[in-house]
Amino acid sequence: MVHIIEREVKTRGQGDVKDVTPEVVAAVEESGLTDGLVTVFVAGSTAGMTTIEFEPGAVADLDRAFEQIAPRHADYRHHLRWGDDNGSSHVRAAILGPSLSVPLKDGVPVLGTWQQIVLVEFDTRPRARKYIIQLLGE
Amino acid sequence: MVHIIEREVKTRGQGDVKDVTPEVVAAVEESGLTDGLVTVFVAGSTAGMTTIEFEPGAVADLDRAFEQIAPRHADYRHHLRWGDDNGSSHVRAAILGPSLSVPLKDGVPVLGTWQQIVLVEFDTRPRARKYIIQLLGE
Amino acid sequence: MVHIIEREVKTRGQGDVKDVTPEVVAAVEESGLTDGLVTVFVAGSTAGMTTIEFEPGAVADLDRAFEQIAPRHADYRHHLRWGDDNGSSHVRAAILGPSLSVPLKDGVPVLGTWQQIVLVEFDTRPRARKYIIQLLGE
Repeated sequence: MVHIIEREVKTRGQGDVKDVTPEVVAAVEESGLTDGLVTVFVAGSTAGMTTIEFEPGAVADLDRAFEQIAPRHADYRHHLRWGDDNGSSHVRAAILGPSLSVPLKDGVPVLGTWQQIVLVEFDTRPRARKYIIQLLGE
Repeated sequence: MVHIIEREVKTRGQGDVKDVTPEVVAAVEESGLTDGLVTVFVAGSTAGMTTIEFEPGAVADLDRAFEQIAPRHADYRHHLRWGDDNGSSHVRAAILGPSLSVPLKDGVPVLGTWQQIVLVEFDTRPRARKYIIQLLGE
Repeated sequence: MVHIIEREVKTRGQGDVKDVTPEVVAAVEESGLTDGLVTVFVAGSTAGMTTIEFEPGAVADLDRAFEQIAPRHADYRHHLRWGDDNGSSHVRAAILGPSLSVPLKDGVPVLGTWQQIVLVEFDTRPRARKYIIQLLGE
């Protein structure tokens, strides 16, 4: 069986991280699947998906690491092309990736206790982000 | 239903990024699947898969970030082992990862408008890269 | 068909990398699947999954890159919250990601010759790590 659910979340711009675990767990429950795979995918090239212990400290630490990898206020060739200011966003998003897949067991994603599924906003402005929760299984 | 398609793309070496979205879209169309998941996987430990806005500026910015994370002309223990010069390639590829999964909806990968599926070459020499397009769904 | 297998591996703490390819290959064989997708997922927010050429040089090079991205002995806000010392672990794990999906062909994961599936320990202490091998296919 295949299920697909679209959701939206509003973000405040670069460094904002949203815990979407409750939405993913609810989507699995609604599907009735007990075994299978859930894939969470963010459409767009300036955001990413991963897991983290969702508490403000770890979230801020992650943002600081990405600021070192691709500083917001550096020169980017992407800026020259479009007059954009979000070159750092594209680089960070490409490195993190837009997709996360988590196995299901007994109808629940097999996450650790302190492990949440998060959408990481990298764009320099607030966005309304569409993400897809996709389920495969039985 | 399960489908697997193998494709090859020639790269010019480190920093070369290939847009494989047309091949992925065509593979989905040929499969006849409307709903499911497409996984694109590059076999090999010196290349990776991700999404990016595929324009030369963003691609160059990504390369620069990886050059900072794992500089090409630094010392690597991997070089001592094999006499290779591609320690930077292995590190970059392990961080990016070889796999990307994208949900399908109505027979199309649910990518953003400016979001392409790309194979990122990290090796220090040109390669003929095999990658696999794998489809699960109905 | 859906199969799920749980495995455990003991690690020695940050920088320890475990080759779990034999366990994954064995799980695929036991399942009897010939075509499909295998997803390997580590439950927990201080470890990650990827592929690498599994030899001590490349593994040490990867550790050095992560030490630059998120130095172990830096200040982390996560430390202020819990009195933990593993802020570097959370940042590294979020960047690498907990999940890896590999297509199957003829009953074997389509890895390159020098490409192994690895669990990367980022926590600052030894751990007994649970990971899940999940199979979808036919």
